[in-house]
Amino acid sequence: MRRIYDDELKSMHAQFTKMGLMVNENILLAVKAFINHDKEAANRVKKNDKAINNIELEIEEMCFKLIALQQPVSSDLRSIVTVMKASSDLERMGDHAVSIARSVIRVKELHNKRIPLVEGKIAEQAEVVKDMVEDSLDAYIRIDVEAAYTIAETDTKVDDLFVEINKLCLKEMAKDAEVVPGGTDYIAVSGYLERIGDYVTNICERIVYLKTGELSELN
Amino acid sequence: MRRIYDDELKSMHAQFTKMGLMVNENILLAVKAFINHDKEAANRVKKNDKAINNIELEIEEMCFKLIALQQPVSSDLRSIVTVMKASSDLERMGDHAVSIARSVIRVKELHNKRIPLVEGKIAEQAEVVKDMVEDSLDAYIRIDVEAAYTIAETDTKVDDLFVEINKLCLKEMAKDAEVVPGGTDYIAVSGYLERIGDYVTNICERIVYLKTGELSELN
Repeated sequence: MRRIYDDELKSMHAQFTKMGLMVNENILLAVKAFINHDKEAANRVKKNDKAINNIELEIEEMCFKLIALQQPVSSDLRSIVTVMKASSDLERMGDHAVSIARSVIRVKELHNKRIPLVEGKIAEQAEVVKDMVEDSLDAYIRIDVEAAYTIAETDTKVDDLFVEINKLCLKEMAKDAEVVPGGTDYIAVSGYLERIGDYVTNICERIVYLKTGELSELN
Repeated sequence: MRRIYDDELKSMHAQFTKMGLMVNENILLAVKAFINHDKEAANRVKKNDKAINNIELEIEEMCFKLIALQQPVSSDLRSIVTVMKASSDLERMGDHAVSIARSVIRVKELHNKRIPLVEGKIAEQAEVVKDMVEDSLDAYIRIDVEAAYTIAETDTKVDDLFVEINKLCLKEMAKDAEVVPGGTDYIAVSGYLERIGDYVTNICERIVYLKTGELSELN
């Protein structure tokens, strides 16, 4: 009995990690689509998100059954609750990838004037976010509290880049009206990345919770 | 024993509703602060959000204890899982109120040129969102599936207003460079309201789930 239960717990964690990898890939694809103005890739992001939403439902059902049938207590219950709450965070990160993809579809249609400097900064911000997502999934598997703290600290870098991109865009938009539609999209996309960073921080808080049972704000 | 358990379940639902009311009030305060350029009110929004985050933690602890000590099954477990998942949605709605408040603090400092027409539209969008939040809390208490469907449909109105506000802002910003910083804030605030509408839709999906045990997308 305990053996089956352990297998089910393992399989729940495996599904959660799989969902995390799917979300990470979709964020990357969305940012790539944005930089390359690739509408076809943007559409793939939207399609992939359906699979992400489905896996979230599957995970929730697994958690529900585990609780109902196995009546877990203490640390097992804590890990189930963590997966339930953190899978919402992953799902929202996925939603932001879709929002980025929507900007791509809009930008392409309007034939906006581009700002290469800003696009470079967005690529830089996306790179930091990507590392945060990957590192947090890795830290989750190892329940590595030290790593969780370090990753959460990195989020200030994502926030700083958002502020910088914002200022750059406002400056360019005030100088050249043709930059206005694209500029607002740059700001929006950078804002989505900033929020993805916040969700990664939430996941880091959950890693600390898994270890300590205490939920505290890391940023 | 069952009596104590029922009381605890009731108290969990009461806390969830209380959290919902707090979030709703904070969204209203944030929008008011935005329209009136009221920095002091914006700071109050940020302060209130701390209390909202705390009540979310309290609710999670209540849910955790209920599961661990009472080992609920079927519909009771479903309602506990609902409260756990939906309180994350409320918390994020609260985060968007804070984002709106941050815009207020930024706008005030920059002495931006205003666009009264857009401000009127944002007030209109906020009014629809407010009704959606209130109605969803009410539908949650009564587990009213019909109401949940109706509320979720209203979300298209919020989305349409977002598109309209976006277009209006882009037009004005292209005409007048002085409008640029304020215009990007209008777009951002309208986007936060749009996303709050999405979270209300999530809560509506949870109301359907409470009744039917099925999780499906309402929008």
